[in-house]
Amino acid sequence: MLDVKVINAVIEALTGTFKAASKTTISLGKPQMLRDIGDSFQIITTIGFNGVLEGNLIYSMPEDVAVSIVTNMMGGMMQIDKIDDMALSAIGELANMISGAIAISLEKTGFPINITPPSVLNGEKISVSVHGTILKFPGKLLDDKEMDVFLVVK
Amino acid sequence: MLDVKVINAVIEALTGTFKAASKTTISLGKPQMLRDIGDSFQIITTIGFNGVLEGNLIYSMPEDVAVSIVTNMMGGMMQIDKIDDMALSAIGELANMISGAIAISLEKTGFPINITPPSVLNGEKISVSVHGTILKFPGKLLDDKEMDVFLVVK
Repeated sequence: MLDVKVINAVIEALTGTFKAASKTTISLGKPQMLRDIGDSFQIITTIGFNGVLEGNLIYSMPEDVAVSIVTNMMGGMMQIDKIDDMALSAIGELANMISGAIAISLEKTGFPINITPPSVLNGEKISVSVHGTILKFPGKLLDDKEMDVFLVVK
Repeated sequence: MLDVKVINAVIEALTGTFKAASKTTISLGKPQMLRDIGDSFQIITTIGFNGVLEGNLIYSMPEDVAVSIVTNMMGGMMQIDKIDDMALSAIGELANMISGAIAISLEKTGFPINITPPSVLNGEKISVSVHGTILKFPGKLLDDKEMDVFLVVK
């Protein structure tokens, strides 16, 4: 079972950093404990971590959400309408910033971890398989689109 | 530029552990330095690492290769003909064992790293985006099928 302090630290870092980095507000629904991640949206970012806790942070979003996030991250300096290499790189960097903030927040809470660099995958009909305790943070953006973050602790 | 001792340590650990764990011989072609990973096979395992080196180990294989590897791992105790959750879990465990052996081999070589747990993704038309120096180890199995391993160092 995950400590509620871990869950709160993740929620706080996730919403704060997401907003600061992407100029987009994300509201998180009640975290759900899952047996499997299973089917995922089209764009997945995986970031591993080790330390007091070991596992993965996994970010899953549909392509249109990625487009909207990257457009916001660029501050309107450029408009993109589909996901190219540069956009995938921005999505990886966003996941990296959020995960870094989660690591700092967890360290303050007494659970120091080190994160690894992100891998971003883009594909169709993707399902994700991981081992451990899976906590899903269902996110909703202002325009009612979804993205999910998963904390997997081995 | 990656130290040649790192490259040799990876090759040695990869071929030895792959054979021991999956009872299948993998022969590795000449490692290739890439700018992008780009398109990938259907089943991807990502494992992060940090320490003296930071980055990711990424394993990419078609479904039929995964089926053949998992069947061998099970030692003929069961025959599988498609990839289910149990098989994905076995593929993740294989990547975990190989990555652990790579970590031990790199530590002996003077490059200690810590690996994180694997995430296994299964989908279609997957492309992978990462940052850093990318070294591709193109692998061939005895029945002339392919799988690739990528060492990404930030």
